[in-house]
Amino acid sequence: MKKFRLTSFGESHGKAIGGIIEGCPSNLKIDFEFIKNELNRRKPNQSSITTSRKEDDKLEFLSGIFKGKTLGTPIAFIVWNKDQKEKDYEDLKNVFRPSHADFTYQQKYGIRDHRGGGRASARETIARVVAGAIAKLILRKLNIKINAYVNSVGEIELLKNYKDLDFNKIEENIIRCPDEKLSLKMIEKIKEVKKKGDTIGGTIFCVIQNVPAGFGEPVFEKLQANLAKALMSINAVKGFEYGSGFAGTKMIGSEHNDIFYMKDGKIRTKTNFSGGIQGGISNGEDIYFKLAFKPIPSLMKPQYSVNEKFEKVIINPKGRHDTCVLPRVVVIVEAMSAIVLADFYLCK
Amino acid sequence: MKKFRLTSFGESHGKAIGGIIEGCPSNLKIDFEFIKNELNRRKPNQSSITTSRKEDDKLEFLSGIFKGKTLGTPIAFIVWNKDQKEKDYEDLKNVFRPSHADFTYQQKYGIRDHRGGGRASARETIARVVAGAIAKLILRKLNIKINAYVNSVGEIELLKNYKDLDFNKIEENIIRCPDEKLSLKMIEKIKEVKKKGDTIGGTIFCVIQNVPAGFGEPVFEKLQANLAKALMSINAVKGFEYGSGFAGTKMIGSEHNDIFYMKDGKIRTKTNFSGGIQGGISNGEDIYFKLAFKPIPSLMKPQYSVNEKFEKVIINPKGRHDTCVLPRVVVIVEAMSAIVLADFYLCK
Amino acid sequence: MKKFRLTSFGESHGKAIGGIIEGCPSNLKIDFEFIKNELNRRKPNQSSITTSRKEDDKLEFLSGIFKGKTLGTPIAFIVWNKDQKEKDYEDLKNVFRPSHADFTYQQKYGIRDHRGGGRASARETIARVVAGAIAKLILRKLNIKINAYVNSVGEIELLKNYKDLDFNKIEENIIRCPDEKLSLKMIEKIKEVKKKGDTIGGTIFCVIQNVPAGFGEPVFEKLQANLAKALMSINAVKGFEYGSGFAGTKMIGSEHNDIFYMKDGKIRTKTNFSGGIQGGISNGEDIYFKLAFKPIPSLMKPQYSVNEKFEKVIINPKGRHDTCVLPRVVVIVEAMSAIVLADFYLCK
Amino acid sequence: MKKFRLTSFGESHGKAIGGIIEGCPSNLKIDFEFIKNELNRRKPNQSSITTSRKEDDKLEFLSGIFKGKTLGTPIAFIVWNKDQKEKDYEDLKNVFRPSHADFTYQQKYGIRDHRGGGRASARETIARVVAGAIAKLILRKLNIKINAYVNSVGEIELLKNYKDLDFNKIEENIIRCPDEKLSLKMIEKIKEVKKKGDTIGGTIFCVIQNVPAGFGEPVFEKLQANLAKALMSINAVKGFEYGSGFAGTKMIGSEHNDIFYMKDGKIRTKTNFSGGIQGGISNGEDIYFKLAFKPIPSLMKPQYSVNEKFEKVIINPKGRHDTCVLPRVVVIVEAMSAIVLADFYLCK
Repeated sequence: MKKFRLTSFGESHGKAIGGIIEGCPSNLKIDFEFIKNELNRRKPNQSSITTSRKEDDKLEFLSGIFKGKTLGTPIAFIVWNKDQKEKDYEDLKNVFRPSHADFTYQQKYGIRDHRGGGRASARETIARVVAGAIAKLILRKLNIKINAYVNSVGEIELLKNYKDLDFNKIEENIIRCPDEKLSLKMIEKIKEVKKKGDTIGGTIFCVIQNVPAGFGEPVFEKLQANLAKALMSINAVKGFEYGSGFAGTKMIGSEHNDIFYMKDGKIRTKTNFSGGIQGGISNGEDIYFKLAFKPIPSLMKPQYSVNEKFEKVIINPKGRHDTCVLPRVVVIVEAMSAIVLADFYLCK
Repeated sequence: MKKFRLTSFGESHGKAIGGIIEGCPSNLKIDFEFIKNELNRRKPNQSSITTSRKEDDKLEFLSGIFKGKTLGTPIAFIVWNKDQKEKDYEDLKNVFRPSHADFTYQQKYGIRDHRGGGRASARETIARVVAGAIAKLILRKLNIKINAYVNSVGEIELLKNYKDLDFNKIEENIIRCPDEKLSLKMIEKIKEVKKKGDTIGGTIFCVIQNVPAGFGEPVFEKLQANLAKALMSINAVKGFEYGSGFAGTKMIGSEHNDIFYMKDGKIRTKTNFSGGIQGGISNGEDIYFKLAFKPIPSLMKPQYSVNEKFEKVIINPKGRHDTCVLPRVVVIVEAMSAIVLADFYLCK
Repeated sequence: MKKFRLTSFGESHGKAIGGIIEGCPSNLKIDFEFIKNELNRRKPNQSSITTSRKEDDKLEFLSGIFKGKTLGTPIAFIVWNKDQKEKDYEDLKNVFRPSHADFTYQQKYGIRDHRGGGRASARETIARVVAGAIAKLILRKLNIKINAYVNSVGEIELLKNYKDLDFNKIEENIIRCPDEKLSLKMIEKIKEVKKKGDTIGGTIFCVIQNVPAGFGEPVFEKLQANLAKALMSINAVKGFEYGSGFAGTKMIGSEHNDIFYMKDGKIRTKTNFSGGIQGGISNGEDIYFKLAFKPIPSLMKPQYSVNEKFEKVIINPKGRHDTCVLPRVVVIVEAMSAIVLADFYLCK
Repeated sequence: MKKFRLTSFGESHGKAIGGIIEGCPSNLKIDFEFIKNELNRRKPNQSSITTSRKEDDKLEFLSGIFKGKTLGTPIAFIVWNKDQKEKDYEDLKNVFRPSHADFTYQQKYGIRDHRGGGRASARETIARVVAGAIAKLILRKLNIKINAYVNSVGEIELLKNYKDLDFNKIEENIIRCPDEKLSLKMIEKIKEVKKKGDTIGGTIFCVIQNVPAGFGEPVFEKLQANLAKALMSINAVKGFEYGSGFAGTKMIGSEHNDIFYMKDGKIRTKTNFSGGIQGGISNGEDIYFKLAFKPIPSLMKPQYSVNEKFEKVIINPKGRHDTCVLPRVVVIVEAMSAIVLADFYLCK
């Protein structure tokens, strides 16, 4: 993130969440409906399997856009936090919730906004979705397409190759898995876990198509390294693999090598275990990767923990949380991918 | 990599490989023997299962060190490439080797140094090992320990938890796996694959101990995001997972949450599925991660490919290559980890 | 500007001006009154010699501050532009005003917000003053003092050494010159120029005291280089000199060398032609510099120019503008200096 | 300096001086003769008015160039320091020379290489000249011309407008002043000062022609701000002014405004007090600036000072130094200007 650059701000229950996007080219027509739709894909309370918490998330642009087009100057945007219920969080004030960032923030800063996770809250991803939507608008002229979908929920896993899926079906169900039958099983699983007051993890698969050869840099700024950083920075992500990934470690070279051949006057590879990237640079084939998401730590069950006075405490469930982060995270994965690609495109 | 910063240079068969390290604190005593030993852990021809290619890799420091101590100014270093056999590579000049960077570099730059992969060669990792060794010297005063080892070769996988292993045994065998029995199987496997002129992948496990709470930044500069970028930038890496990783996606929250408790007057977690990082910031527990390495693409078998004139060609095996990159890569994984940690330490 | 970093946004007549400050230490108590006072030193219509344009400039913080203290997370702030009179600027829409940024923005971006200069307007300096005020709060604990004042208006120049001035008098007159007699002459001069519908330039002198030895970096990141960049980025600045400056070029070395001697147990210099910086690093003596400001280009007279259709046009005076930027710029000079010093302090 | 980036290294009497240039476009033909000639313009002992110290300064490229053309990968280069006379500097080991960086380096780092100024030595500018020469090669295709010359030595000042000078005459005399008569006076002055064992300052004027409109960025990354930073980072520079500079502060707006008009189908300005930059962005007119250089502090006379033990000492003259840095600095000023412009060009 060097040319196209997002600087974001905001605590979960502070006044607002927002950001500044620098490096966006001038004269780009802003498709406000599209951006709003991207935010809707992320927003809470969108279906029976997401949190019932209501957040309006009304987006306001403050600068950088003039009569619907970008000026080339910084694009600032803001989403007000309307629902600042201070009292709701009073009893979490001095407590470190398990597997949250309460403890580490306190250690690092000696102070924290305890309300809803403060800066560590996934509410911060609003800024990513807005910047990602603008990045997608930039990439439109190259016809680059980014499609992410839910690949597994717990043990329920989509085993089909992405090439055998219809990406148009992703948005047709509330879990955002393009396989209809499996999507029902995933939804059922989430509801089952929800009843127990528990949460569950899963994986997201993402496919990026029509990236021309030449995106990425040698050595430290490899395309996959920048994708990994961007995606591993999303809350709850525990792993990233691209191309053949961990399964590729069990292959031998003669199976794994992607043989070049000519097709329609272009150099292509017969297989694509490389995941569209060789030597850190895109080769024109599909870029694809998989992400691991842990079960989110906010349970609807009592849990033991420790408070700031080093006392053992019981944390009782409070608020309304997602049982499974996956359906809402699909658009965030696409957004971070778009930001990385837009940056490499603009740096070329 | 913001304060402690490595800028590297060099093509595989150019005059030299080297780099400049900026941001190293002054008055650090340089342990030249240690650095040399780290380079020896990386060097070719170190055992019967690594390439028999001989490279002397004599390291020379050019600046930033005065009477054995750092000055606080840029530390430049160089390793000359003694063995520049131009002719050896003549018949690869116009050919794109499968799953190498030949094609993508040519697409990106319109020119490339075809000799031994040029800038895309893993010979570049010499610079990483030198900077990593200096980073380790910086981290010594915090008693931070970084131990990587070979966790699997193809299907042969070490299933023990890292806590049940003796890291002192890592360097006792040529594959660098701390389990003696398994190391023999791995070595056998590599020799078997080598005989067939093929190559094989595997995984590296890395454990970082004694990192104080507070390393890392919120949101985009999370510790795991920076580790992922640094490690995914190593040649042949296809995946990164930390803590519970991909297996964690199959867990439910009440299993996965790391419960805080008091131990010896300190706040600790009972389990460590978080992998020592919460909200992007270290929590004082062990940091651990696993990396997937693909089988390297240089085979000792003929392969089909395409040349710059878009003609189908057969590439005949040439040179001496590793069958399995894993034993030589252990020190590189440690080096990149050390660079990331030293940077966060110095930025604190 | 690496650790303490301001990212700003906003067009002069867009919705708002604001910014995000990253890298501010946590647990810093925010003195809101002080910040408001700094903004008042910058605001228009503060006296009979500044523009009569009324701008309320009410500052709102959006993040990073919790119960009056900084969280260590990004501090976002905003000032709404209340007075968006689109029509006032209609006839400047296609015209390039002389010595403004209209032409260059149009050349660079192919689009521009013509209302009041858009992004090029000095209204952007609100963000600098806010960040500078916070930087000053950081520097308070080192007792670092930054005092700027008006040194000349046109030919009327303060010839006294800064050591013979009482900085407490700077804010006692509307021109912000600590010499009472001269301040009256300056004010008279500005009123005289204003009557003619013209504008006038001048110089600002700035003294930074109590900076400990050791701020700054060798070679490219010298303290004076970073000060020069920060200060030359202010609208209308045409020159920067520190220490002996241009006058020093007429000296010989034996006059110019600052001889070291011992005073009160510390190493000091007898003279200070170095301006408190040697080899790019502060030496503990006063840092001082002078800045040249051109006469601002918005005249209350008709001027010839060219429009976007390449036609010759006459631009008639419009709006209310400063005759002399100097009194309002004093606080901006201090702000940019504080930002640079806070960054070096936090990077140490 | 973001895309085209020089990282340099080296102490004056360490093993070598050198650097790594990143971001140079691929397929650029390297004119080695030109680079060598640029280094010759900087080298010591080039004439009767420069130091008689002999330094061979043989340049060696180590990477990034293949068969005479750039690869797009980092270009490393090195100049060995042949003349490492440790003993010569023994008596300066614990002494702080007046107006040198000895004291500030010691304060900052607690250690320093005392030999010839170590990292603070102007020998470091070799790296700038090499990178600047490559930047000039990049700018050749835009026909951008950069000419610097000596404008004054002490009180002897060239008062002609740069438009009335013949830049071809700059290299015709040893002081590098394009006015023949004045050059003789300058040379005479330097010889006179030299006889007294003293040194003298002066100014450099630099003109950059044929820069297209659109180089530079708004607000913090203005073209003049980046030029100021780059040029103020050169040893001994005390001031920078561009366009009307300090003299412009005495003008009124109606004199200073550069009126637009049409000439040969292009928008031009009648005067150029703006110095080719408006709103931080080039407008297509000539960019010009002036730099103040102090008299260098190495005298051929005894001077009082203080040593590391806080004792008063007398420093006796040693070594061979320039009396006036100006003739050798002309190429360095051009180099830093070229680096800034090449970066803005490549970032566009």
